[in-house]
Amino acid sequence: MGDMVTPLDRRVPHPLEQLSIGECNTARDVILSTHGVSVIDFRTINLEEPPKSLLQPFLDLEAEGRIPKPDAYPPRLARVAYDVISENKVFEFYESVVELVTGAVKVKELIDASHQAPLVIREFDHLVEAVWASKTFQDAMAEFSIPDGFEVIVEPWPYGGRDPDDEDKRYFQGLCFAQDKRSGNPDSNFYAYPLPLIPVMDARTKEIVRIDRLGTGGKQDGLAKGTHNKEIIKHCKGAEYVPELLENGSRKDLKPLDVIQPDGPSFTVTDESLVEWQKWRFRVGFNPREGATIHDVRYEGRSIVYRMAISEMTVPYADARAPFHRKQAFDFGDGGAGTCANNLQLGCDCLGHIKYFDSVNVAADGTATEQPNIVCLHEQDNGIGWKHTNWRTGRAVVTRHRELVVQFIITLANYEYIFAYKFDQAGGIVVETRATGIVSVVNIDEGKTSMYGNVVSPGAMAQNHQHIFAVRVDPAIDGPNNTIVLEESHPVPTSSDRNPAGNLYEVRQTPIKESGGHDAAPEHNRIVRIMNPNKTNPISGKPVSYKFKPPPTQKLLAQPGSIQARRATFTQHHVWVTKYKDNELYAGGRYTLQSRDEVDGVADAAKRAENVENTDVVLWSVFGLTHNPRVEDWPVMPVEIYQLHFSPGDFFTANPAIDVPSQRNLSSTLHQKKKGNCCAK
Amino acid sequence: MGDMVTPLDRRVPHPLEQLSIGECNTARDVILSTHGVSVIDFRTINLEEPPKSLLQPFLDLEAEGRIPKPDAYPPRLARVAYDVISENKVFEFYESVVELVTGAVKVKELIDASHQAPLVIREFDHLVEAVWASKTFQDAMAEFSIPDGFEVIVEPWPYGGRDPDDEDKRYFQGLCFAQDKRSGNPDSNFYAYPLPLIPVMDARTKEIVRIDRLGTGGKQDGLAKGTHNKEIIKHCKGAEYVPELLENGSRKDLKPLDVIQPDGPSFTVTDESLVEWQKWRFRVGFNPREGATIHDVRYEGRSIVYRMAISEMTVPYADARAPFHRKQAFDFGDGGAGTCANNLQLGCDCLGHIKYFDSVNVAADGTATEQPNIVCLHEQDNGIGWKHTNWRTGRAVVTRHRELVVQFIITLANYEYIFAYKFDQAGGIVVETRATGIVSVVNIDEGKTSMYGNVVSPGAMAQNHQHIFAVRVDPAIDGPNNTIVLEESHPVPTSSDRNPAGNLYEVRQTPIKESGGHDAAPEHNRIVRIMNPNKTNPISGKPVSYKFKPPPTQKLLAQPGSIQARRATFTQHHVWVTKYKDNELYAGGRYTLQSRDEVDGVADAAKRAENVENTDVVLWSVFGLTHNPRVEDWPVMPVEIYQLHFSPGDFFTANPAIDVPSQRNLSSTLHQKKKGNCCAK
Repeated sequence: MGDMVTPLDRRVPHPLEQLSIGECNTARDVILSTHGVSVIDFRTINLEEPPKSLLQPFLDLEAEGRIPKPDAYPPRLARVAYDVISENKVFEFYESVVELVTGAVKVKELIDASHQAPLVIREFDHLVEAVWASKTFQDAMAEFSIPDGFEVIVEPWPYGGRDPDDEDKRYFQGLCFAQDKRSGNPDSNFYAYPLPLIPVMDARTKEIVRIDRLGTGGKQDGLAKGTHNKEIIKHCKGAEYVPELLENGSRKDLKPLDVIQPDGPSFTVTDESLVEWQKWRFRVGFNPREGATIHDVRYEGRSIVYRMAISEMTVPYADARAPFHRKQAFDFGDGGAGTCANNLQLGCDCLGHIKYFDSVNVAADGTATEQPNIVCLHEQDNGIGWKHTNWRTGRAVVTRHRELVVQFIITLANYEYIFAYKFDQAGGIVVETRATGIVSVVNIDEGKTSMYGNVVSPGAMAQNHQHIFAVRVDPAIDGPNNTIVLEESHPVPTSSDRNPAGNLYEVRQTPIKESGGHDAAPEHNRIVRIMNPNKTNPISGKPVSYKFKPPPTQKLLAQPGSIQARRATFTQHHVWVTKYKDNELYAGGRYTLQSRDEVDGVADAAKRAENVENTDVVLWSVFGLTHNPRVEDWPVMPVEIYQLHFSPGDFFTANPAIDVPSQRNLSSTLHQKKKGNCCAK
Repeated sequence: MGDMVTPLDRRVPHPLEQLSIGECNTARDVILSTHGVSVIDFRTINLEEPPKSLLQPFLDLEAEGRIPKPDAYPPRLARVAYDVISENKVFEFYESVVELVTGAVKVKELIDASHQAPLVIREFDHLVEAVWASKTFQDAMAEFSIPDGFEVIVEPWPYGGRDPDDEDKRYFQGLCFAQDKRSGNPDSNFYAYPLPLIPVMDARTKEIVRIDRLGTGGKQDGLAKGTHNKEIIKHCKGAEYVPELLENGSRKDLKPLDVIQPDGPSFTVTDESLVEWQKWRFRVGFNPREGATIHDVRYEGRSIVYRMAISEMTVPYADARAPFHRKQAFDFGDGGAGTCANNLQLGCDCLGHIKYFDSVNVAADGTATEQPNIVCLHEQDNGIGWKHTNWRTGRAVVTRHRELVVQFIITLANYEYIFAYKFDQAGGIVVETRATGIVSVVNIDEGKTSMYGNVVSPGAMAQNHQHIFAVRVDPAIDGPNNTIVLEESHPVPTSSDRNPAGNLYEVRQTPIKESGGHDAAPEHNRIVRIMNPNKTNPISGKPVSYKFKPPPTQKLLAQPGSIQARRATFTQHHVWVTKYKDNELYAGGRYTLQSRDEVDGVADAAKRAENVENTDVVLWSVFGLTHNPRVEDWPVMPVEIYQLHFSPGDFFTANPAIDVPSQRNLSSTLHQKKKGNCCAK
């Protein structure tokens, strides 16, 4: 025990704590000095998580209540992504890893020019500036008459998948709208007035190289461009969502609903990363790409998950008219979900007692500043947790289903996603996504309807599209060596010796032996069981496990071989199982911006055909929604909710929520009591 | 307007209001006088809803704010179910309909003896009495040694499906357990000590006619009975759930979470059936069979649903050993979900400001008494409703997703279901079921495991089973004449003239022309759209509709032709579409108790092969869970949640929740603020 110190002696950050502002600045200085006189354009600086071979033993020790001495910690590393710009304006994109204590550069990787670095928001500003400076754009806009009081707005977007004959340029595109400025309100909803032009910028020269003209036609026009009226937004109609611009204001009859926690929360947060709640213990991380990440999830000290994060999401659009085939965002790989995370607001984004986590932003010169409130943590009530009434005695025992929620929200131009990791008292973990925000619309000629989407507002057609998410779970069911088992329920033929009355069905288990992709099969009640084959549940005699039912959502609809499909091979299966490898985190590949193919994504990882039985496996869940917009999605879409449920399957020796208190909540009130207290027990 | 009165003048109950105690007693008196000197054993008395031809015009008038004069109301009717017992002990089961004002018997239907009346709880008491009086049972029990301090408990169950050679007797069966009485606590969990005997009672003679011996074997025993040790529960172990019996008591670290509505609720309830909330307006009914029913759902006066209820649920068990093939409950048809509804408790079954609805119970002599608090109504917060941040200005507008919940809970021996109808501000309706309670267990020899289920506690094996629900929705999308359309999204082959880049997919709609059954097809993103083809959305130019995605859950696994399958043909499809017919409410047929076949269920209704296009259609959604129990389901199972989501699809002209206020909730509190107020807007 000579190498141990007590927690109070800790002088160094936990290996999973985000980098401090000071650490980021140290990393910047190391990189600046390494590259000498060149101009460095910093993109991101964030914690490089320690390799599992170092972190896992550390976490296991820690879980036993033993913290290594500071010099036994894994080296503290920073990953720095940046462009090196030479005097002749050649851009080289690097990812380097800096050891913060020694200042050593452990990795200095020049990224192949066939890949594009993930975008940073300031590149969007460059696009807007370039558009305003562009004579080509002005000429194109002159084809249209924009009414008095309206101003053109350029909405920067990633360029999407390059066509086969596109050069290896770094491009950005702008979707254009007109904003009604007559109210003087800067938040008047410009999406209601789409303009059929897309300027394309070369990010290196910051020049508009092309203006794409968009179709405005309807069903009758097929791939043709449609009318392109000069009075292009005359038939459009305002659609406001900020309350002060609503025609009739906000509704007045919604009474307040307050969540009060008079004794404070049931959770504790230490280290700014360690969360403890109701026998759960885990760490919250955050990085520019994945947003919030969850680490080292344990329940009563037993490990369940090593690391969990939203890995990728692709949003391909189905409008067949060029250049809309390029409209395909990778909302994690293209620019980073963490980069786009909202500054969350007390009393708006959640109710009750809220803990906020902060992160760090990096400017082009590498200077770090605080990115506040990008993750929130709170408890919530989700109805009844379990109930039983003994009908003989009339005694009812009922508990509430309390959840602990780690939430972050990202805004990507018009659209938002709300992501949540929820933990409950019955050992369940839910990964939730809510899609909201403003659907992407294009101009459509007056009176026409489209086979490519739905007219959601006069002159505004919302294009059909899909959202396909990948969640990466690195499980650790009582340790790293796990086996993924597909379990199904199947009918059994009637026979006198096995199934005389025809009511038997059998549960079949198939362990996955080799890395690969698998699909949901709800018709067989297919369940994915993450099993530790080395540990037996003492009650059932079966291996301990966690399980989830893969959502059988529609897979990518784009044609095999199309650019959309080639960029997102992770969408080919609902479930992927791979062998753990450090830094293999991204389902759609490390670099998605302008990609033509998914490179080093989960499909490539699976192709290694490694043994995944009773070893350190990684599970990837792919699910999504085919979103054919409805008028009710306008002007801001009500949340569309998808959930992934992980629950214990013979992991515990009983319902872990059985000791949740069942006392009556005394703050509830009774409506219009008509007679004596009929609700007393 | 001479035939109109104002609401304040109303002197008669609304046609959808439940019968009062007085009305029930009137109906009883009419029946008693009709049948003269015979002994009448009353089962249920409840409102007979008016035929649609009378009720629909009434509701439409009412929605316009015009209430007919009392004498223009549909006749007020009571349905009375009862046995007529002749002097020679012949039981005849009747369902009669009484006109309450005139006392006329409108219908007097002697039910064919091939059907069994739904059970009433007092028949369970008869079983328990018969078991205690039975020498056969005492002899059978003498085979076992029950430890000191334990007492035998008989848990009455419906008999299940009759075998082909069973007579047309009315049977009940008892599952037997031993209760540890040493604590003196009457709620000690006896399910932990299952006994392998099932006494069967003839309900007419009230005698035990047979004792079925249950298998206690494991995998190695197949259909054989197993060991049947004399010390039958010696290897079992207590599993308590009432807090005072928990070994370590309830957990202490869960802090209170209160829902406070300082200005009261946002809903109003009048008539004891009319609910108005956030532009919604509907009526809550309740009957012994379906529990809570929802009627005449309108949003801003526009009709959406005429009637909605949980129609049936079947729970077939998959243990191949006789007599377990008979273990198949129909939890609505067999005894009535309303009959088994819990008396809900303030501060336990929901939080916040709660309105309770009562109903009426009828004793064997027909006397009606209050059945209090069987439905509750409250508002709840379900996270973010919609959000958009203008990243240019930083302005975020975020609203909460407030829901109005109508909830009822039923206890069926060991098991409970929580049913909820939820309405939201975005025009959505969710039907939710939560399965909880105690899983059904049988004795298993020490150290064995089973192919029929999972050992969840020493000596207690929880059998594999399914829960298959049917929800009946009688839609009225802007009126009764609707068309059900199946909508799918399909890939389109690449071609230069239609899909040059391969990203196009097409949305196909297939109207259902004839009544029949259909299945979920998540691989095609199959959506069921309930359309009013006579009304066009002015924005999209498409017919107004509501839609839902049928959950693609596993269908019945029992073999075609087996008794389990024949009794539940409604489980053959996820979606049924039928032509409306008065009183055609029950997916599994009118009489399910001891049924051999589904008679007059939804499959028979569909077989009429009627036109269902642009007419008064009814939609049935069938979904469920294959429940292969896990150790964590013991001793009381955490809720397993299933939801059916109905949402508007071009029904409105914009997101109906766009005017929900976005102001900050001032009661939320901040955790461990480290520095200045970083969360101010």
